[in-house]
Amino acid sequence: MAVRVGVLGATGAVGQRLIQLLEPHPDFDIAALTASDSSAGKTYRQAAKWRVDSPIPNDIGEMTVTATEPGEVPDDIDLLFSSLPSSIGAEVEPAFCEAGYVVSSNSSNSRMAEDVPLVIPEINADHLDLLEVQRDERGWDGALVKNPNCSTITFVPTLAAIAEYGLEKVHVSTLQAVSGAGYDGVSSMEIIDNAIPYIGSEEDKLETESRKLLGEFDGAELSHNEMAVSASCNRIPTIDGHLENVWVETEDELTPADAAEAMRAFPSLDLRSSPEPLIHVFDEPDRPQPRMDRTVGDGMAIAAGGLQETPFGLQYNCLAHNTIRGAAGASVLNGELLLENGYL
Amino acid sequence: MAVRVGVLGATGAVGQRLIQLLEPHPDFDIAALTASDSSAGKTYRQAAKWRVDSPIPNDIGEMTVTATEPGEVPDDIDLLFSSLPSSIGAEVEPAFCEAGYVVSSNSSNSRMAEDVPLVIPEINADHLDLLEVQRDERGWDGALVKNPNCSTITFVPTLAAIAEYGLEKVHVSTLQAVSGAGYDGVSSMEIIDNAIPYIGSEEDKLETESRKLLGEFDGAELSHNEMAVSASCNRIPTIDGHLENVWVETEDELTPADAAEAMRAFPSLDLRSSPEPLIHVFDEPDRPQPRMDRTVGDGMAIAAGGLQETPFGLQYNCLAHNTIRGAAGASVLNGELLLENGYL
Amino acid sequence: MAVRVGVLGATGAVGQRLIQLLEPHPDFDIAALTASDSSAGKTYRQAAKWRVDSPIPNDIGEMTVTATEPGEVPDDIDLLFSSLPSSIGAEVEPAFCEAGYVVSSNSSNSRMAEDVPLVIPEINADHLDLLEVQRDERGWDGALVKNPNCSTITFVPTLAAIAEYGLEKVHVSTLQAVSGAGYDGVSSMEIIDNAIPYIGSEEDKLETESRKLLGEFDGAELSHNEMAVSASCNRIPTIDGHLENVWVETEDELTPADAAEAMRAFPSLDLRSSPEPLIHVFDEPDRPQPRMDRTVGDGMAIAAGGLQETPFGLQYNCLAHNTIRGAAGASVLNGELLLENGYL
Amino acid sequence: MAVRVGVLGATGAVGQRLIQLLEPHPDFDIAALTASDSSAGKTYRQAAKWRVDSPIPNDIGEMTVTATEPGEVPDDIDLLFSSLPSSIGAEVEPAFCEAGYVVSSNSSNSRMAEDVPLVIPEINADHLDLLEVQRDERGWDGALVKNPNCSTITFVPTLAAIAEYGLEKVHVSTLQAVSGAGYDGVSSMEIIDNAIPYIGSEEDKLETESRKLLGEFDGAELSHNEMAVSASCNRIPTIDGHLENVWVETEDELTPADAAEAMRAFPSLDLRSSPEPLIHVFDEPDRPQPRMDRTVGDGMAIAAGGLQETPFGLQYNCLAHNTIRGAAGASVLNGELLLENGYL
Repeated sequence: MAVRVGVLGATGAVGQRLIQLLEPHPDFDIAALTASDSSAGKTYRQAAKWRVDSPIPNDIGEMTVTATEPGEVPDDIDLLFSSLPSSIGAEVEPAFCEAGYVVSSNSSNSRMAEDVPLVIPEINADHLDLLEVQRDERGWDGALVKNPNCSTITFVPTLAAIAEYGLEKVHVSTLQAVSGAGYDGVSSMEIIDNAIPYIGSEEDKLETESRKLLGEFDGAELSHNEMAVSASCNRIPTIDGHLENVWVETEDELTPADAAEAMRAFPSLDLRSSPEPLIHVFDEPDRPQPRMDRTVGDGMAIAAGGLQETPFGLQYNCLAHNTIRGAAGASVLNGELLLENGYL
Repeated sequence: MAVRVGVLGATGAVGQRLIQLLEPHPDFDIAALTASDSSAGKTYRQAAKWRVDSPIPNDIGEMTVTATEPGEVPDDIDLLFSSLPSSIGAEVEPAFCEAGYVVSSNSSNSRMAEDVPLVIPEINADHLDLLEVQRDERGWDGALVKNPNCSTITFVPTLAAIAEYGLEKVHVSTLQAVSGAGYDGVSSMEIIDNAIPYIGSEEDKLETESRKLLGEFDGAELSHNEMAVSASCNRIPTIDGHLENVWVETEDELTPADAAEAMRAFPSLDLRSSPEPLIHVFDEPDRPQPRMDRTVGDGMAIAAGGLQETPFGLQYNCLAHNTIRGAAGASVLNGELLLENGYL
Repeated sequence: MAVRVGVLGATGAVGQRLIQLLEPHPDFDIAALTASDSSAGKTYRQAAKWRVDSPIPNDIGEMTVTATEPGEVPDDIDLLFSSLPSSIGAEVEPAFCEAGYVVSSNSSNSRMAEDVPLVIPEINADHLDLLEVQRDERGWDGALVKNPNCSTITFVPTLAAIAEYGLEKVHVSTLQAVSGAGYDGVSSMEIIDNAIPYIGSEEDKLETESRKLLGEFDGAELSHNEMAVSASCNRIPTIDGHLENVWVETEDELTPADAAEAMRAFPSLDLRSSPEPLIHVFDEPDRPQPRMDRTVGDGMAIAAGGLQETPFGLQYNCLAHNTIRGAAGASVLNGELLLENGYL
Repeated sequence: MAVRVGVLGATGAVGQRLIQLLEPHPDFDIAALTASDSSAGKTYRQAAKWRVDSPIPNDIGEMTVTATEPGEVPDDIDLLFSSLPSSIGAEVEPAFCEAGYVVSSNSSNSRMAEDVPLVIPEINADHLDLLEVQRDERGWDGALVKNPNCSTITFVPTLAAIAEYGLEKVHVSTLQAVSGAGYDGVSSMEIIDNAIPYIGSEEDKLETESRKLLGEFDGAELSHNEMAVSASCNRIPTIDGHLENVWVETEDELTPADAAEAMRAFPSLDLRSSPEPLIHVFDEPDRPQPRMDRTVGDGMAIAAGGLQETPFGLQYNCLAHNTIRGAAGASVLNGELLLENGYL
């Protein structure tokens, strides 16, 4: 029997992707949609400026949007997917957890909190048990799980695949798609025939979230990975798909061939939205490319390529679909992990 | 009195920019235009698929294009600007030099040859005297001077400005405009809504040319700079302007503030096409941007910004107009240096 | 049992779409791939610069490409799909027909020939019987069927839907995607931040092909429709999807509401690639849009919208996926019609 | 001596262009800048998100922005340029006129009012004397002059040039740049790899403003031109430059050659910002193009091309820079006309 779920912040860019992914999902039934107060009471069709490349599912279009407050969401919903703006998420997500809801959130608030698991299931599913600590400390019946930022998700799986060589230094330059900023995040006048070498707070997310994701959880406390990471983030005129140039220096010698082999062999999971393989490694030096490769593994795989030796260790490029694997799909996958691990 | 000059490979993208820059130039008079055999005999207007954003100067449009061979170019021409494809340049440029012409070339062949000066006047004008060695060794009456690759020119001036701190390691990621590949170099289907993390041979150019440019010439031999450079090159959907993310580790401690100061203070030259200042440093963290800043200093300045400290030294971004400062303007400037130093 | 088919010109943009559509097709088995002499002997993977957004099917990648000559294609192939450049198609398509092959061609040559059926199955399937005339006149065992130009296919179905009102005058302005010109047809320097108000020979195709398609076939001769059409064609920076602004003046009064109803009610066919409905009419005034709506009906439907009254009759916009419904899909559909009508 | 002028709505897209054009203007001195209340009190540098491709003039950057109210603007200012949003303009422009200011406005409100001159100086400078009627009726010391919408300005001069042939029917399809919608008017997610066949209220502007502009003023009343116009408007991914496909049916026979001749011969004015010639007619069939030709005549000329005969009269394409000739430059030019005609 399908779990009844809700979407907090359902009208935004990630909210729309969530609906696109959840509507045909056999384990989840969309039973609530929330948005800002100005949308409450409207049908979803009226409230959302739908811009995903498939039509609004008919029954979803006719659902009534409610305000984003615990009292407005039915009690019999077990799981909430949140794609709220960070400041709003920081306010209302704890309220939902306190009211007993389990929240799988893409919102950037609280990702680095000590008792909040930040999870990419194929990478660090064991961190999910931080929820026991969280419930103890906060006295919640519900629970709060986060997925990382889209640009973090893109490169962390490739690092995980070679982590056994001892990660020391990572330089990463990102070429990020406009959808990462939401529908109205980047105006066309800003980005056509242009690139912007700055995305507010983004570099810090890659640098800190990656170390938390690759850290060790001993059942009580989470220690972060000790590698040093420096990121430089750029916005470019692509719709979807974040491309990243990565340099990694490792403790043990690591050839491009061994790295490619490790990435190809890195295991995926048996969850419904986990792709097989997790990391698709291209032999062609000019791949991956956003428009060509962002839908590898239905947008849930990581694409990598261009592995080469440099004076500073291994260099390669990686790519992920930022609103699927990097946001909505990441939250759905965490929902599947919560279900499998008995948290629902 | 103006020097009579010719343009080798006048119909290509860089050739057109050369004409745009040379036509109003008070020191140079365009007296010959060459192209492939199939264009020879046509007027320039017929031969060139003109795509620069100002009309073909009228008198230039009516000039007759000749084949690219020494016998086809008038004897009384002193200086040739070459924007030939590399393989053709490798063949015919030496023939022109042997025939007594001085050639200021943007073509990538021979840039790393020991007796060929690779020059950015504001950075290493003293390397020009390698021409004495060149003439000795090759027995030429003419001479061959090269400017570096467009992506090299973009970041080397910023390194020169902080070289006194002791350059050790440089990581650079490039976001390069399509014009760098010539008119038909990048098809629209390849690049709209996309990025390509690979440009053939480009990374090697940044890594080797930068070390030659920042090397020392003792009057007889040129020793390359000992810094290590690793580049990762990307093509993005911008028309003009290469943007680069740079990390530099230096021997001496270097703060972002000191680096900005050093860049701002770095001297330009008194040559006609040298901008003042050479490096324009932005305080806004989201600058420089290709469409906004590629014409700083009439396209001859370097724009820099986003200076920050990282675990791996200084990080910043820089930008230059790839077909002006990075190609045609670089060759013109080398022509001005040749004139000032009495080589014409 | 599946029909064995071949693709002439398999490495080009439309050839790749043909493979993408034919490979999973239950009625057709790809048994031959041809390309230019320089590709002959290579595997398809080596020969094609694959740029469609799904990987090369594995077995296709390993097939050997042959030259585009009757002697090079196996005899037991019944049907050939042709996406050859027009001048080459004009030469070799008749040779294949003479050798007994049935050819469903997207190539623009011979579309207006009196004895060559130009067919959009949902519009004028009855024209297919022109093949009897063709075989009589040319003495062919094979047969040659054409689909129209991509920009013609986009607006003709909407005209067919309202034809009963008496078509008199049609003005049409097109905003065409770059893929319509093939992979290297439009360079990025030509089209980024730009539009080109001219596509060679395109306007004539819309004006003449539309009249042939909407003409009457009496079993012996085809008379063209008498409406007058004037087209103005533009290339814009979109990857796929031709958008068209249409004004139609009709003999009988035609309201926007009646036109929308007629388009919605226009019947599709029971062929495998025919969409249901054929014409998707949007109520939102700002639709259809290329990126949002080009995949309606898996890229085989026509999208229409913005119907309004003007001083000059009805005005509306329509859209079709130019390399699916407008090219490869159109040829496949004609192949299905040939199969259903016993021509294979 | 230069006239002291102010800019109402100085921080917006057109406001920035106004400053770019007015700052070096010998006849005008910028003495006041207004914006929304939230910007009042800030320096212009702080208040404006400057995105024009030349730096903020230094003295302008340091000016203090005031609220957009008569009491906030110095009395000794003679002329105000207004680029206010339409609804705000409708409210405050009359207040400024009543307070004695002469306003040259690009704001769309009141353009069709009977006593408000809608002027393109080279086309209908004589309409300016409607100001006498306006002052009589409204009892204003000031005055209100409007320039038309950007897409109207693009095609009206070409119609004016052939008006003597008797304009009857005009169909026009527009391909409009994103800057026409203001900085945040079109999000990048809406327009990259896309086109939008709808711009709210735009079609009506082309249809009605064109008839007013080409109407006759008899000293007391203005009668509109009787031609019928139907427009279909599209937004495409270009930064600047509106391209339009036009069909014109005329009473007298008009060949493409005669039309080209009439456009080339159409007189410009002696005003400082009027280009010479007003209409630049291209012989190349693929011109004008936005990126290549939007700066013809420093962005103040109209470019035309592709003239051809059709079943429905003359067809051609035209282009103008929408934020220069189509907005800021149009207002400045009207300011010059007001000065020359003694209204300041």
